[in-house]
Amino acid sequence: MKLGTVEIDGAPRVAVSADAESVVLLPSEFADVADVIAAGPGAVEVVDAARREGARVAVSEVVWLPPVARPGKILCVALNNSANPDRIMSGPDTPAMFVKPSSSLVGHGRPIRVRESFGRVHPEPELAVVIGRGGADIPVGEAVGHVFGYTIMNDLTSPTMRGEDTFHYRAIHPDPESDDGIRYVDSWVSYPARYKGSDTFGPLGPWVVTTDEVPDPHTLQITCSHDGVLVTDDNTANLRFSVAEVVSFASEYMTLEAGDVIAMGTALKKSAKGGAVQNVDLTRLGGVIEVSIEGIGTLSNPVEKR
Amino acid sequence: MKLGTVEIDGAPRVAVSADAESVVLLPSEFADVADVIAAGPGAVEVVDAARREGARVAVSEVVWLPPVARPGKILCVALNNSANPDRIMSGPDTPAMFVKPSSSLVGHGRPIRVRESFGRVHPEPELAVVIGRGGADIPVGEAVGHVFGYTIMNDLTSPTMRGEDTFHYRAIHPDPESDDGIRYVDSWVSYPARYKGSDTFGPLGPWVVTTDEVPDPHTLQITCSHDGVLVTDDNTANLRFSVAEVVSFASEYMTLEAGDVIAMGTALKKSAKGGAVQNVDLTRLGGVIEVSIEGIGTLSNPVEKR
Repeated sequence: MKLGTVEIDGAPRVAVSADAESVVLLPSEFADVADVIAAGPGAVEVVDAARREGARVAVSEVVWLPPVARPGKILCVALNNSANPDRIMSGPDTPAMFVKPSSSLVGHGRPIRVRESFGRVHPEPELAVVIGRGGADIPVGEAVGHVFGYTIMNDLTSPTMRGEDTFHYRAIHPDPESDDGIRYVDSWVSYPARYKGSDTFGPLGPWVVTTDEVPDPHTLQITCSHDGVLVTDDNTANLRFSVAEVVSFASEYMTLEAGDVIAMGTALKKSAKGGAVQNVDLTRLGGVIEVSIEGIGTLSNPVEKR
Repeated sequence: MKLGTVEIDGAPRVAVSADAESVVLLPSEFADVADVIAAGPGAVEVVDAARREGARVAVSEVVWLPPVARPGKILCVALNNSANPDRIMSGPDTPAMFVKPSSSLVGHGRPIRVRESFGRVHPEPELAVVIGRGGADIPVGEAVGHVFGYTIMNDLTSPTMRGEDTFHYRAIHPDPESDDGIRYVDSWVSYPARYKGSDTFGPLGPWVVTTDEVPDPHTLQITCSHDGVLVTDDNTANLRFSVAEVVSFASEYMTLEAGDVIAMGTALKKSAKGGAVQNVDLTRLGGVIEVSIEGIGTLSNPVEKR
């Protein structure tokens, strides 16, 4: 099934896709998709009842919210695209991740609000996983069983702020040979809170599609377009680390919780006609940015000056 | 007042400091300090009633939880100590931040669980701010009014995992002069989810001390000791960016919410007798790591092999 969180008369409600043009609403005690996850197998009956008896609302009328309002954590995998290994001189052979704050999330259709001072801001079209059953040290073979469904994240990034929040510094390393027990090592370190986590830098949704409707998350076409012009055209087959590998690896370090979101990393391959996402500077260009994933949906957001 | 979250008969409760040796409990509808913040000025009466009528519990009997169980976000300021400017060859002249997931939090007294595979893990003793009133674009002059109180964060860090999750790569930059509109720029980028956010990497507490009892958060002695041996001895006067500056700056980018936690950055000055925190490799040494801040309390956690 396809689930989303919408705003009706100022309150959040869960919507279930009924057909191409309409949704039905779950009872008001379900405030977001996380509440459906928490209800476990009992949610199936609630959804069935809503489909039978619920009033239909036109999709075009709906105001979308992020499907999960306040995930315990939003993990994002960096540089997870096999299309560009030649760009990496050195890096880990395991998934590298950062955390976006839940305050950065916005729903489908809501504005991405940029400021001149943000510098360049570009889109990153990504498949995202919503965790259904938490856990730590989840084996790769069991990892997909912990996934509730798939959604879309536009992992907005300001390379300008990334450059600003990068330090070239002398890190302190232990050195038993030296007088004071330390030595300085020339290092670089960058901090992503601002450049990845500013308000509206996390468009998410509109739909969470449950795993039963996505038999293989690694065969999905993913496209990004700006004002209707194709920017990237890629396939989740090009992800370097799979959903199962990322869920398992993350859970070795960070206990996963129901409702956690993991964005799988950017599809970066240039389309034949398009350019690099890095060239789509939303601060300068404004417009509407759209990410589509086969079988999952389309996430579209207009850009607004803040 | 001093507030903490404790576990009583398996359920979380809010404890208020009564005297040096005992606490009183708030009614069970307060599950953590965030609920006290949400109650607003009305919480004062509840606290007064508990102090008059509540049963006292010996501090020594208490099992501590993180004061806020699930902050909307945990922001941490990097390299915010004026004692070591000579270590930084280049970096921002504004606070650089990263996000720790709430799953990394543990209470006072709870074990820090390390694995051999984590490599080196060192403590970082920090003053932390708990936001009382949210907001965006908060002016510096009003920022302290948005703070509910102060607590202690031990911002555990694995420099081994930091090294592993650092990429040396060719970043794609726009270049209108080139054929394909881009050029490659030799860059470094590091991702902190694992090295800053692994389970138990965020000891927090035990107390949140309300701002009325901390007239100036920039005059507080802060010490860190390992198995009773002093490691660092510093003062919050050495923070480069003040609480007001950090709260204001963060809120320009990320809307702050009540219950958000901001760790102010590490006191790094070596004590006369101690060494660098980087030399206290908890993976190798085990033991008990303790952070004390004048007027706030002492946060102590044993290290356990996982």
